[in-house]
Amino acid sequence: MRIGIDLGGTNLAYGLVDDSGKLVDRGAVKITDKSPNVIARQMMAIYQSYIDKDYDIQSVGIGVPGPVLKDEGVIIQLVNLGWYNVPLVEQLKEVIQCPIAIGNDADAACVGESLFGAMKGHQNAVLLTLGTGVGSGIISNGKILTGFNGSGTELGHLLIDSVGDPCSCGNTGCLETYASASAIVRQYNRLCPESAVTEAKEVFDRYSEGEKAAKDAIYWFAKHLAIGIVNVYNVFAPEIIAIGGGVSKAFDVFYDILMDNVNERVFSKDITYGEIVPATLGNDAGIIGAAFLDKF
Amino acid sequence: MRIGIDLGGTNLAYGLVDDSGKLVDRGAVKITDKSPNVIARQMMAIYQSYIDKDYDIQSVGIGVPGPVLKDEGVIIQLVNLGWYNVPLVEQLKEVIQCPIAIGNDADAACVGESLFGAMKGHQNAVLLTLGTGVGSGIISNGKILTGFNGSGTELGHLLIDSVGDPCSCGNTGCLETYASASAIVRQYNRLCPESAVTEAKEVFDRYSEGEKAAKDAIYWFAKHLAIGIVNVYNVFAPEIIAIGGGVSKAFDVFYDILMDNVNERVFSKDITYGEIVPATLGNDAGIIGAAFLDKF
Repeated sequence: MRIGIDLGGTNLAYGLVDDSGKLVDRGAVKITDKSPNVIARQMMAIYQSYIDKDYDIQSVGIGVPGPVLKDEGVIIQLVNLGWYNVPLVEQLKEVIQCPIAIGNDADAACVGESLFGAMKGHQNAVLLTLGTGVGSGIISNGKILTGFNGSGTELGHLLIDSVGDPCSCGNTGCLETYASASAIVRQYNRLCPESAVTEAKEVFDRYSEGEKAAKDAIYWFAKHLAIGIVNVYNVFAPEIIAIGGGVSKAFDVFYDILMDNVNERVFSKDITYGEIVPATLGNDAGIIGAAFLDKF
Repeated sequence: MRIGIDLGGTNLAYGLVDDSGKLVDRGAVKITDKSPNVIARQMMAIYQSYIDKDYDIQSVGIGVPGPVLKDEGVIIQLVNLGWYNVPLVEQLKEVIQCPIAIGNDADAACVGESLFGAMKGHQNAVLLTLGTGVGSGIISNGKILTGFNGSGTELGHLLIDSVGDPCSCGNTGCLETYASASAIVRQYNRLCPESAVTEAKEVFDRYSEGEKAAKDAIYWFAKHLAIGIVNVYNVFAPEIIAIGGGVSKAFDVFYDILMDNVNERVFSKDITYGEIVPATLGNDAGIIGAAFLDKF
């Protein structure tokens, strides 16, 4: 058995995962104190609770919302928790006796989808998660791509336009400002200021009812997502691209518009590009993938 | 000894390369007939000429201007020569007795720079060649990245703007339309229509003389190259990016403007990104790298 932990801004979601990727037990612990020492203790307690129940634990993996140096076991930066250069693995070794691996949470989700979900069996695969922001994970030649400094694969911050909405990262024109749930809401409210929508789901609902502004907003979203995907094709040519995150629930709604735009923009019409599919593990991808981070 | 061959549109440039990457002999054969059979015979003759001189040939590698399926030894498409799905390695085996490898020419140059040039010793490295177009090669986790369909790493066709000049690939706003020698010339002539410049070198010369239009054109070029490089950082976070091709001769001229723009746009100011350096092997990179394609 393996333990996967997903460190969020407000709680630690965790699970016991078997070799087939099944979550056989799960739980969550609230973060009451953001200091690394306290959170490390909470992680140790999760491990200890399974040991006390006589589980044989092969590995513990932790996905975190920021860049990490995986080989060194060091978290570079977690803005939401105020962590900088935390040697988490070293701290956890005090109690945890099995291999411990850390990784970016989007990378963990990518590992999950790659081992047991939509991207199963592929050596070159990309996961894009479209939620509040746009997250990403990349499997290249069978290994998770982290970059030499742990900063890799911020596909949400691909610069796809010289003008555009300002992004939280300080640039304008990032993919995230077009292809996230927030971007869909913002664009819809811009096109249709009299109705203050707050959720992307509402825009998709209005699209299905045939509303013009919703149609324009979804087209705008899909066109820019297509530019991001064509850029991914032009860099990686992965075998498969999976779309996860909240927006992927509307995958069937936007798929045709997306593909029209992708096919129009691909570098060569003579080449078969990787297919685009919805992610299948949902919110569990992060926990399941974290449990297998030591293998990537 | 190894043989490296660079298949161009008009000739076959080749060389005998030793284990230290030194070109100990070189030559070129004119392409008089573009048919695969004739060109394959010319390649066999190059091999045979070295065998006749009693060289012990370990491998033959061939860089070609288009996508290939490296493992299958098949050239997918060479637009300039009118080749489609040519099983070149199979044909060459008739005469050539040692391991034969084929690869995209930009990938071959990337292998050369990675083994013996500007990117020596790096496991994650990107070569951008700025010439008539923008070519690219990527080493990811120590392996050349070709994509599952041989179409990978067309960084020249990263879509970085929704508006912009039309590109030969059919899109608008590709990196190549901003960061190639042709793009510099085009932008300069647009800013300064009375003087019909034909070479990027002239624009750089005028820049050094302090001319306003040249300054604006080089700034425009460097700003967009920076966007391309930041996109590469956001996808790969390579340890190093080398700039080759004719434009790289002016590396010192544009480096400061480039870095100002890169530093302004990087995702996180707290992260150390890979350095940007000029390529060092020049036109020989393709032949030298081709000779070692079997190792990547």
